[in-house]
Amino acid sequence: MYSLPPALDRLIQLMSRLPGIGRKSATRIVLRLIGSSEAECRELARAIVDAKERTRRCSVCGALTEDDPCAICSDARRDSSLVCVVERASDVLALERTGRYSGRYHVLDGLLSPLDGIGPDELRIDDLLERARACGLREVILALNPTAEGEATSLYLGKLLCPLDVRVSRLASGLPVGGDLDLADELTLGTALEQRRDF
Amino acid sequence: MYSLPPALDRLIQLMSRLPGIGRKSATRIVLRLIGSSEAECRELARAIVDAKERTRRCSVCGALTEDDPCAICSDARRDSSLVCVVERASDVLALERTGRYSGRYHVLDGLLSPLDGIGPDELRIDDLLERARACGLREVILALNPTAEGEATSLYLGKLLCPLDVRVSRLASGLPVGGDLDLADELTLGTALEQRRDF
Repeated sequence: MYSLPPALDRLIQLMSRLPGIGRKSATRIVLRLIGSSEAECRELARAIVDAKERTRRCSVCGALTEDDPCAICSDARRDSSLVCVVERASDVLALERTGRYSGRYHVLDGLLSPLDGIGPDELRIDDLLERARACGLREVILALNPTAEGEATSLYLGKLLCPLDVRVSRLASGLPVGGDLDLADELTLGTALEQRRDF
Repeated sequence: MYSLPPALDRLIQLMSRLPGIGRKSATRIVLRLIGSSEAECRELARAIVDAKERTRRCSVCGALTEDDPCAICSDARRDSSLVCVVERASDVLALERTGRYSGRYHVLDGLLSPLDGIGPDELRIDDLLERARACGLREVILALNPTAEGEATSLYLGKLLCPLDVRVSRLASGLPVGGDLDLADELTLGTALEQRRDF
C-alpha cells in the first residue's frame, strides 16, 4: 500500500502533537503547506524559530515578552499596587482583551495539583509573596479558573496573602453575560443565586 | 492595551492561514509551541523545510513522492492498464486506504471551474490522454468528487476518453456504508434509489 513520502509523514507526526490538531487535520495542513511555494514554507519555519528565540518571560510578572520587563510592567500609567494572578501567560491576553483592567499581572505557571506532582514550589508563589511584601500591594485579584484545582490554589494563596495586609479578591462566578438561564449548568446557576447582588 | 510580542504575533498570523486553523487555535498552538524546548521548535521548523525540499510530484501520475517515478508507478505488480483519475494528490491516499485498488493513478490537479478561471489547460488532462493513447489503457476510473465541478469535469473527460477505445467508469453514488437512511439528504437518497442494484 502506498503511503506518504517519509519527510511528509514526519512533518504530519510533529504537527499532530500540537493542541487541537489530529492526524487528519495535520495531513490536510501539511498537504496545503507542500502545495505552497518554497519561500512560504521557509517563512513559516523561520517564524517558528524566531518566535522561540525572541520571546522570553518577563522577570517581574512572567508574561511573554521580547523586552524585559514587559510592556505592562514598565508602563508607569498602570496601577502598580494592583496585581492580578493568572494561571498561564495566555490568560493575560484574555484579561487585556476586556479593556477593563489597568493593574499589573502575575503569572503562576500552573495550578496546585498534588496528583500531578505540582506543589507550591513548582509555581511562582514565592515571587508573588515577595512582590506583595516589597511593592506594598493594595489588592491582589485571584483570576484562576473556577475548577477544583483553581479553587484549591485560590484558597492556598488567600491564606498566604491575608496576613500581609493586602486586599485579596477573586473573579465573580455566575451566568455568562448574554447567556441563557436554561442552558446554565446547576452549579453555575446555584452560584449565581447564592452570590446574587442587590438591584 | 497589551498585545503579544511581534514575533509571536507574526507566527500566529502565518499559522492561521493554514486550513482549519483560525486565529484562536493558532494562538493556542503558538503558545504551546513557545512553551516547548528550543530543540523541538527547531525540529518542527526543519521538518517543514525538509518536507518541502524533498517532496516532488511524480512525473507520471502526479502523486507526491520523494523518488520519481513514485512507488505506485514503479511497482510492477500494480495493473498499469487501469488508471484512477483523482482531483488532488491527497485523494490517492484516501483510495489507497481502502486497500481495494491495485491499479495506478492520475492526479488532475483540480477540477474544471470556469468561474474561477480553471479551464482544461490548467489541469493535467493532456497527460492523461497521452497515457491513454501510449499505454493502451484498459479502463479509466473517474474518481472525482460528486459536486457540480466534479460532475462537469467527469463529463468532459468522458467525452475525450470514449473515442480512445478505453472503458470509462466512475465511482458509485449512494448511501454511505453504515449510514442512516433517515439522515441522508434527498439528492443522495434519490441517486441511491435510481441506481439501485438487483439483489
